[in-house]
Amino acid sequence: MPASPIRKLTPFADKAKSEGKKVYHLNIGQPDIETPEGMLNAIKNIDFNVWAYTPSEGTLAYRSKLTEYYNKLNYNIDPSQILVTVGGSEAITIAMQACVNEGDEIIIPEPFYANYNGFACMSNVVVKPILSHIENGFALPEISEFEKLITPKTKAIIICNPNNPTGYLYSRKELEALKELCLKYNLFLFSDEAYREFCYDGKEFISPMHLEGLEQHVIVMDTVSKRYSACGARLGCLITKNKEVIAAGLKFAQARLSPGMVEQIAAAAAVDTPDSYFEKVNKEYTMRRDTLVNRLNSIEGVFCPNPGGAFYVVAKFPIDNADKFCQWMLEEFDYDNQTVMMAPATGFYSTAGTGHNEVRLAYVLNKQDLEAAMTCLEKALAVYPGRVD
Amino acid sequence: MPASPIRKLTPFADKAKSEGKKVYHLNIGQPDIETPEGMLNAIKNIDFNVWAYTPSEGTLAYRSKLTEYYNKLNYNIDPSQILVTVGGSEAITIAMQACVNEGDEIIIPEPFYANYNGFACMSNVVVKPILSHIENGFALPEISEFEKLITPKTKAIIICNPNNPTGYLYSRKELEALKELCLKYNLFLFSDEAYREFCYDGKEFISPMHLEGLEQHVIVMDTVSKRYSACGARLGCLITKNKEVIAAGLKFAQARLSPGMVEQIAAAAAVDTPDSYFEKVNKEYTMRRDTLVNRLNSIEGVFCPNPGGAFYVVAKFPIDNADKFCQWMLEEFDYDNQTVMMAPATGFYSTAGTGHNEVRLAYVLNKQDLEAAMTCLEKALAVYPGRVD
Repeated sequence: MPASPIRKLTPFADKAKSEGKKVYHLNIGQPDIETPEGMLNAIKNIDFNVWAYTPSEGTLAYRSKLTEYYNKLNYNIDPSQILVTVGGSEAITIAMQACVNEGDEIIIPEPFYANYNGFACMSNVVVKPILSHIENGFALPEISEFEKLITPKTKAIIICNPNNPTGYLYSRKELEALKELCLKYNLFLFSDEAYREFCYDGKEFISPMHLEGLEQHVIVMDTVSKRYSACGARLGCLITKNKEVIAAGLKFAQARLSPGMVEQIAAAAAVDTPDSYFEKVNKEYTMRRDTLVNRLNSIEGVFCPNPGGAFYVVAKFPIDNADKFCQWMLEEFDYDNQTVMMAPATGFYSTAGTGHNEVRLAYVLNKQDLEAAMTCLEKALAVYPGRVD
Repeated sequence: MPASPIRKLTPFADKAKSEGKKVYHLNIGQPDIETPEGMLNAIKNIDFNVWAYTPSEGTLAYRSKLTEYYNKLNYNIDPSQILVTVGGSEAITIAMQACVNEGDEIIIPEPFYANYNGFACMSNVVVKPILSHIENGFALPEISEFEKLITPKTKAIIICNPNNPTGYLYSRKELEALKELCLKYNLFLFSDEAYREFCYDGKEFISPMHLEGLEQHVIVMDTVSKRYSACGARLGCLITKNKEVIAAGLKFAQARLSPGMVEQIAAAAAVDTPDSYFEKVNKEYTMRRDTLVNRLNSIEGVFCPNPGGAFYVVAKFPIDNADKFCQWMLEEFDYDNQTVMMAPATGFYSTAGTGHNEVRLAYVLNKQDLEAAMTCLEKALAVYPGRVD
């Protein structure tokens, strides 16, 4: 079981804090954005006396509200096509367990969300990474590169769109190309859409759910964590029009009995969050992204693409080793008694020897803190003993 | 992946209800007891603006309150020995993943909580059942019977105490015998204590945590579900003094990021639930158990032991096939437009051909409903076409 790259440096951060350093957390996707008021009020207004199990697939009330949300996005689904899960994490686990047998293979463009490795490991599924490149902003690799990896054991492709860790937003053309590939080789397309609400510069979000003819292949894995800044709710869902997958997934859902009850009440209310909330959040993140990307690219030796979505960037630093550097930032470095915690990109790559000079940064802090963090980083890179130019 | 025996008849129950029948649910451990007021008030009084992740192992605040609870029971632990989990279900999964390798074996006295099969299946662990018997109330099988099953691949024994589905409460003598066995063969002892608070007739609950010299072998799997009638909270924990197990379990916990935040706030408050709550609940369940057991044993051909804990009984019926009978109760039978949903015991046995004339009943309804359900059952057994005397 691999350690989580976004949390493995936590002991060093704790130590730094215990020594009185201020640590800017750019390592984890925990936004500081407020959860919608309507969602929090729904918690405060609970009016039951028994905190009971819900159906394993989630309450019909919540799945109906979710249907409303997704059908506004033209997913054209009904509540029977939704399995409510314990976080997006469980949506990923159940998708793997329901669709992929032990020893089968899943192709994932890398760098990818590191916990896919953990979930694959739990399900005894083999991850086949396919390299994407910082030079073109981590666009989808050529389809011919995917084809080189396909074997009789290949069962699925995972895309995370907008992407964690790179922020890349896949185009309709890229998704159409994946569709042809999945139809040709009869593969599932797992679409992790945790960051769907975070697309910038007016760019349109396209889901594989929008692609005609792919209905039996698409499994959407979603969560309320980022959409409503409700990471601590641990509520996600799996969506598919494939009845066999829903039936198989339900068995795994039944084994753990029920998703949380209060969360489903709150998340049902969250569906009525006004558009103005998302507009404000989008504006805030756009400004933060611009701040971060501009500051990063102004540092000598640093390169950072300008991603179209999510709230992460992967940047290239003039360093020998990202793990060493990120640990050094916490253990050895401070500027004005401040430092920055980041996630070494090595943890998001699965091919040995890749990502060693790349770091993921989450722009989940306000502009002032981001600026301060960038100043720290700039000072740090100037004096880091392992600097490589 | 095996289907859950407590939910697999749900479509038949739904159909019966759609036809206007009243269905008494004795199939599932969803108590009708009210959740403690202090726990519900803690939900209503939340005062955060960002519903955030908590540490993967749970908040220190909650683990500290839990330590208070467990140390009143003389478990003698500290917060670092607790991993907060998403329900008791996840405590079981993580215990298996952290302690048992693929292909290794776990011995479990049967009948046992059916979802152990699902969790073992997910972890590719082999369950070796060891038969306990209704005649002696499902007491622990002889240690010599355990020894017959032990191979170099045996890594753990699971006990559920008080037991689901049988209600049997293990004695200190039985636990001491298990201790010697675990020490002799270097096995983990997984102790599922979901029903700890439900011991009747003044009988004392003994945990393997109370056994000196077994500290490195014991993993407690717990949940707030039954203790506070908060099944929908999905909050449990794993407790062990074995540091390697905590470290291995933490990696799995990190993969799914965080347990629920609101739940931890509520469950921390629940630790201060006054003793009077538990006394009242205990009195209520004792009365229900007595009602159920007396009524069952008064039905011709039925035998039901009088268990010392939990809120289940397994009873022997004069029937050909428990699965057929339970389905027939929902599909074909009604008395005064009422019927009963129960869980066929076959789903709790893993040895083929066992439990076919046994049924699990949960006494989670009030006395009046239990009486009405027993009247239905009595009428049903009198006319069931598959009756066997």
